[in-house]
Parts: sequence; structure tokens; C-alpha cells
Amino acid sequence: MSPLSRALSFTRREVLRLLAVTPLFSVAYRGGIAMAEDTAAPRPLAYRGEHQVKPLPFDPAKLTGLSEKLITSHHQNNYGGAVKRLNLIEQQLGGLPKDAAPYQMGSLKREELIARNSMVLHEAYFGNLGGHGSATGTFAELAKAAYGSLETWEAEFRLTGQSLAGGSGWVIVVYDPDSKSLHNAWAFDHTHGVAGGAPVLVMDMYEHSYHMDYGANAKSYVDAFFQNIHWDEVNRRLARLRVA
Amino acid sequence: MSPLSRALSFTRREVLRLLAVTPLFSVAYRGGIAMAEDTAAPRPLAYRGEHQVKPLPFDPAKLTGLSEKLITSHHQNNYGGAVKRLNLIEQQLGGLPKDAAPYQMGSLKREELIARNSMVLHEAYFGNLGGHGSATGTFAELAKAAYGSLETWEAEFRLTGQSLAGGSGWVIVVYDPDSKSLHNAWAFDHTHGVAGGAPVLVMDMYEHSYHMDYGANAKSYVDAFFQNIHWDEVNRRLARLRVA
Amino acid sequence: MSPLSRALSFTRREVLRLLAVTPLFSVAYRGGIAMAEDTAAPRPLAYRGEHQVKPLPFDPAKLTGLSEKLITSHHQNNYGGAVKRLNLIEQQLGGLPKDAAPYQMGSLKREELIARNSMVLHEAYFGNLGGHGSATGTFAELAKAAYGSLETWEAEFRLTGQSLAGGSGWVIVVYDPDSKSLHNAWAFDHTHGVAGGAPVLVMDMYEHSYHMDYGANAKSYVDAFFQNIHWDEVNRRLARLRVA
Amino acid sequence: MSPLSRALSFTRREVLRLLAVTPLFSVAYRGGIAMAEDTAAPRPLAYRGEHQVKPLPFDPAKLTGLSEKLITSHHQNNYGGAVKRLNLIEQQLGGLPKDAAPYQMGSLKREELIARNSMVLHEAYFGNLGGHGSATGTFAELAKAAYGSLETWEAEFRLTGQSLAGGSGWVIVVYDPDSKSLHNAWAFDHTHGVAGGAPVLVMDMYEHSYHMDYGANAKSYVDAFFQNIHWDEVNRRLARLRVA
Repeated sequence: MSPLSRALSFTRREVLRLLAVTPLFSVAYRGGIAMAEDTAAPRPLAYRGEHQVKPLPFDPAKLTGLSEKLITSHHQNNYGGAVKRLNLIEQQLGGLPKDAAPYQMGSLKREELIARNSMVLHEAYFGNLGGHGSATGTFAELAKAAYGSLETWEAEFRLTGQSLAGGSGWVIVVYDPDSKSLHNAWAFDHTHGVAGGAPVLVMDMYEHSYHMDYGANAKSYVDAFFQNIHWDEVNRRLARLRVA
Repeated sequence: MSPLSRALSFTRREVLRLLAVTPLFSVAYRGGIAMAEDTAAPRPLAYRGEHQVKPLPFDPAKLTGLSEKLITSHHQNNYGGAVKRLNLIEQQLGGLPKDAAPYQMGSLKREELIARNSMVLHEAYFGNLGGHGSATGTFAELAKAAYGSLETWEAEFRLTGQSLAGGSGWVIVVYDPDSKSLHNAWAFDHTHGVAGGAPVLVMDMYEHSYHMDYGANAKSYVDAFFQNIHWDEVNRRLARLRVA
Repeated sequence: MSPLSRALSFTRREVLRLLAVTPLFSVAYRGGIAMAEDTAAPRPLAYRGEHQVKPLPFDPAKLTGLSEKLITSHHQNNYGGAVKRLNLIEQQLGGLPKDAAPYQMGSLKREELIARNSMVLHEAYFGNLGGHGSATGTFAELAKAAYGSLETWEAEFRLTGQSLAGGSGWVIVVYDPDSKSLHNAWAFDHTHGVAGGAPVLVMDMYEHSYHMDYGANAKSYVDAFFQNIHWDEVNRRLARLRVA
Repeated sequence: MSPLSRALSFTRREVLRLLAVTPLFSVAYRGGIAMAEDTAAPRPLAYRGEHQVKPLPFDPAKLTGLSEKLITSHHQNNYGGAVKRLNLIEQQLGGLPKDAAPYQMGSLKREELIARNSMVLHEAYFGNLGGHGSATGTFAELAKAAYGSLETWEAEFRLTGQSLAGGSGWVIVVYDPDSKSLHNAWAFDHTHGVAGGAPVLVMDMYEHSYHMDYGANAKSYVDAFFQNIHWDEVNRRLARLRVA
């Protein structure tokens, strides 16, 4: 069994424990009607819990200034753990009775947001690593249009990253379809996000992104991040968003 | 001067105060190079601070169960205040020296996220009010596809709303382009959002959305909200996202 | 049955629903060993869930500029609701299996923090209302010692309050035993608090504290709050903390 | 110059930069009346910004399972950085004009809360390391009184810690003077705290507490933490709180 499949599969004990903690489908009758009431039917998409870990899109031994050990642990434990947790949460949501106490729904939806954004942002993060060079193409044009110059865009992006050093968070360049422009967004943890913004360049600032290699020296990590940006992928994302 | 223009225009005193508080363009020389360094050039988009309050897209006297007084105050004070604040923050960001202490950038970017999401979500909220009837068209199909039935989608949406009663937050149905599906998202305040999700149906749960009319009775407010959803606009949003 | 007892008592349906949602004591055997494992023994204090709503310490019809309707609803719905919720959460915590998924413990502990702080802060808030006049005694001396003058203390307190207008939060003057001084603390919602600080003067800035009376005009609410501070009680709190 | 004094002292460039960013005392006249208006008088305590880094109360080379490199970096960079930042923030608060935009006060007070709690909790954390053995004395009695058994207290404490693995936060045992009992508190980041609770045992769960030694294996870090708890100091804290 590969580390990845291990990260995703549930042990029999885990499943039994989960069934014990919350009424899943099999025990839904105990608490009025559950969200996903028909236990014979396949669970609907929202409660399916079958997200899969995507493999790294690059050789983790070949980044500049970010070690294989760091990247592999980050991918397996932090990203893989989020996917696994999201699957549990979705199934637990499906088993929640429709007349549950509101805080039970609220806290599960918060956990879902944490796990889901962690999954999505980690995929975007690993997806925009594995390259090199300077910003090019559509991204470079849009960053210049929004910030006056690439230098100013980068200065704001880096300083926002520095403000998260020693803690958690993300710096996310989103494309905003309304203003048709790029925007640097601050996230203090997985829950934060720009309403309607599509992430096109993502930098993880959780300490698990750099501590093994750089200790508390977040600045050197940000330098290393910039050396590995896959600008072609960033521009492909913009193209998928139908940005000329 | 209409209340709306008043909400947006700055008094001379406000501008002077702001200049005093932070180095804007005119005083940028005092603190090294500012983000937007060239004080002669027009400010770049990211630091322009010229967002405009959009008028209500419906007659506030004609909603069902939501009073004109409530809607008008909500639009003018809470939405209008966010737009005005966002404009100040963007200009302040432009004046921040490139070598500012990181926490100064971080806290301004957080304020920007709060004001920006408040603006965007309020526009989406008012935009999806002014209608009536039941969910139709693409939205109804997608909600059924994601949650098994419209009833289950609505039960989760309402219970998430109830979990925010007595405080702040939003319930946001986002369209996720990766899974091509709808998803109910919980937001405890303006900062929370689904990475990559586009808001298609938005319910404000801040107490300013209902206290004047319903006091602490958030449940009746949610009932009233459902009576005023503008499903055609919701489906237009999906169409703009090129969802079939 | 008085409104207060009603706010605190559980209906049979509520208890059944809770039992269905999570393994409480009676069903703890289903999920390995629960936190409070011995279902015959009385539940330990941490999982007892028997907090009682304290009545208002003043006549709600007699405040200056804060209506009886507002105060009564605030006390009954927002404070009373928090006490009731805290009791449910504590019992649910007691039923959580010792080998539950960590996020299940984390999200319940967060809900506990929200409900507990809401209870404690609301009690402190109502407790420091019902008076009038200006700051006196130990509080006045300590505020002057910390901020240079009462005016400066009040200016910072009020401006912090204004920053929370239109949303949620608290302004809390805490006594810090280490520096033997007072400190104005910002709280964006119920979860925030100064480590080691004891609240001596508490102002609720959730919109339910003023919307019924003042709509979005938080400034007038803060004015009204200042007209009703019970400075003797504030000084008694300092005395209980053994501050000379 | 020792690393500690270096961490605390400001360079001439930093001071000049700060002066440029915000009106401190010397430039307060530019923005109406500042919080601390009299620039000739010594700054009041709240705006003094003279907190000092406390040295480690134990030999960092002698903990069990926590390396000297990890502890020294944690103390110097994360704790020392917070003290230095708090000093800057307090002075910046003192220079804020009394008629500043409310969000400017709010965001500075938030930064102050982050830095202050980080300082206080780190001091409590390092202060309760350097020991060994099992819980004894008053702590053991109170934990048993609150949770039924030491095992249950520890199970909840550890599982709450596990829920924070891969991110940020603290687990804090507070003494609550009202109920005269101990309580495990969850904190997702530096801002969270129990209203009125005094920290008596503090475990840092930020990834900088363990990543250098354990990578993503937070469970082993929690094991190591338990091997180093200084129970005598924990009981001294309870004694200072006049708990019998």
C-alpha cells in the first residue's frame, strides 16, 4: 500500500468509530430524518466523501531550495490529511438529522470549509510549483495593470506573506471576473477567501511549508517559492477562466 | 446631495485626517518608497479606491416581510459604509512604504478583505432579492444533483443560517467550477469564503439584516428571505458562469 | 413557566434529538469509551451542563436610552440562548468517545468557547449596567495610570467600539494582574480574549445590543451605554481581584 | 550584543520607518490630537512599548525530546518577535489620532491582542516546561474534581491538541475563579481566550513548536510536552491565584 493510498483509506476501526460518534446512514433513524435520508440510494454528491488525493505534478527531488523531505511530508500529511478529513466530514454532514441543533450544523460546515479550502488551495499550491523564471504572459500583463508594475505587485505579495510568518495562512492572487483584474488576498487560515475570486497563484504560509528547511526564516522560504513558480500553469489557469 | 453620494464622498476633514494617519501619496517620501511610488502618475487600479455604491435593484417598499426601513438602512449604512471604507483602505495600501513592518501590511490586507467581501456579498445579496416563487431552472437542477433533492439543499441552507443567528455571517451557495456543482458555504463573518467558488445565492445573517423587523427571531427572517429570492437572477449568474 | 425557565429547560423532543445526534451517556457504549465513561456516576463538573440563567440585576424599564424591549430580548434570547447551548455542548463533550476524530473534539471545544464566553461576558455586561455618573474610585485611578488620563482611556475604548459597529464583538476592559494595570481589549466575536485578563468593564457590540433602539447608529448606543455604567459594581470587581 | 537584546532593540532604520508609517509622538500634531497627546510627558503605560524578553527559565539543552535548536529558535524568533512587535504596536497606538477612522483603531487593537497574547502565552509555556513526572498537588486535585479523573482531563487536553495539529493554536488549562475549577480551553490562534480564565498550564500547538524535531508528527510532540511539564510551577501559579 503506497503512502498515498494509506492516507486516503479508512481503517475498519475508523469507520466504526465514526459510526459511533454520529448517526451516519445506517443509524439515521435514531434522530429523525437525516440530511441524506434514503439509506438505500447512493449518497448525493455533497455527502459522498470520495475526494481523491492528487499526486504531486512534479518531481519533489527537483525543486530549488525546497527539500524532497519537506515537500513530500507537506503533500502527504497536510494535503492528504485534509482530503481524508473532508471525506469524513461530508459523510457526517449527510447523517446529521434535519432537526439537529443549529450549532452542530454550523460547526460541521466550518470544519468542511477548513478541509475543503485546505484541499483546494494545496492542489493549487503544488500545481503552481515546479517551474522557474519570471512572471510572463497574461499574468504579467494583468499584475502590471492592477498594481502599476510587477515590482509593486511582488512587493505587496511578499510583505503580505511576511505578515503571516510564524503562524498560518496563505497569500492568494485571485482573478476577479467583475473588475477583470488580479488581486493579492490575505488569508490568516484555511477559512479565508475572496468572494468570487478565482485563485491563480497560491503561496502556502503555514509553518509546515518551510520549518523543516528554513526554521523560522520565512523570508528565505518566500525567496525559494519565487524560484519555483510554474508561470505556464498560472497562465493556463487564467486561460481556463477565459481571460484573454 | 443624496444619501448615497453622501455615503461615498469624503469630507475635507476626512481626507486631511487620513493624510495625517498614514503616508498617502503626498507624504510617501517620508517613509521610503511607497507601494504606489509615482505620485504624479494616476494611482493603479489596486490602490485607486473609487468603488461606487450600486443602487438597490428593486423597490425597497415592495419586498414581502422585509420593511423598507430595514432594507434602506442595510443598503445605505452597512453596504454603503463598506464601499466607503474599502476606498479608504485601498488608498492607504497604496501609501504604505515597501519596507513597512509586515503586520501593517497584514492588518490592512485583512481590513481590505473584510470591506471587499462585504461589498461583493451585499451586492450579490441585494441582487438576489426582489423575486418570489420556488427554485427553478439550472439552480434547481444543480441543487438536486448535489444534495439529492431541493428539500435537502434547503434544509442544510436553512440550518446553516440558523447556526449564525444572534451573531454575524453569511450563507452562500457557490458554484464550484471543478466539480461543476453547487455547494452551501458557511461564513462566520465577512472574511470567510470558499476558494474558487462563485457566489450564486447569498443570504446575509448579520443581525442588521433582520433585527429591526424581527428582533432575535432569525427563523422568521429566513422565511422572509426565501419569499423574496429572485430565482431568475440566480439563474442568470449561473449562465454568466457558462453553466448550461 | 417564566420565559427564563423556558429558555433554560429542555423539551423532551430536544433531549431525544440530542441523544440521537451524539452519543451521550446512555449511548456511550456505542463508541468506545466516552470522556465521561461511568454512566452510573454523576457527570463530572466539566460535562454537567447545568449552568443557570442569572436574572437581570436591574429593572430593565429604568435604563437611560436603552429600551425595556431591547434589554429583555437581549437577556432572554442572546444570553439565555448561550447558557442553554453551553449546557448541551458540555453534555455532548462528555459523550464524545476518547478516540473520536480530533476535529470533532476541536469543533466542540470551539462551540464551548463561544457559548461560555458569551455567557460570562453577557453576565458581566448586564452586571455593569444599571448605574450612572462618571468613572470613580479604583477604576478611575487605574485608567488614568494606564492611559495618562480618563479622556484618553475613554477615547480608545469608544473608538474600538466604533470599529465593531455593523458587526459583532465586545470591548472589554481587563485587569492584568502581572502589570497591575487596566487594558482595553478588542474582541471581534465571542472567542477573543486577553490571556490572563479579568474583565472589569464590558460593552457588548453585537448588533442585538442596539439595533432595535438605534438601528445602525452604533455611536448613539455607545453614548447610551456610558450613561448606564454601574461604576460601583466595576469597582467591586476590582476589589474582588484584591486590587487596592 | 546577545541574540536576545538584538531581538528587542530597534535599529535606527526601523525607528525611522515606523515614524514614517504612522504619526508617533513627534509627528502627532499632523493628525489632530493623538491618543497620547502630550509629547513632552513620558508616554503612559498603555503606549509605552517597553516590554522585555524574559530569558528561558531552564537550560534548553536539557529537555526530554525537545531539541535545544527548536527551543532556542522558538524562544528567540517566535516569542522574542512577539515582544518586539507588541512594543511597536503600543507606540503606534499612542500616536493614533483620536479622530482616526475606526477600522484603524480596530486593526491595531487586533494586532495588539495577537502580539500580547503571544507574549503572555509563550511566557507561560516556557514557564511550565523544564520539569518531569506526573500531575501533582492542587492541579491534580482540581483536574480530578472538574473531569472526574486525571485520565479524562488528559484525554480531552490531548485530543484538543491533536485537533490543532498541522496549523496553529494553543491548549490552555485555565483556572476559573467563578466556579473555582479548571477548564481545558481551545485556541485556534493567539487571539482566542477564555473570558476571566487565568492560564495555569499552556501547550503551544503552532507548528514552530515541533516541526524542526517532529515534522508533521504532532502526536509525538504532545508526548514530549507531557514529559517536560513543570508541575511545581503549575501549582505555584494556582497558589498565586490563592487557590488552596
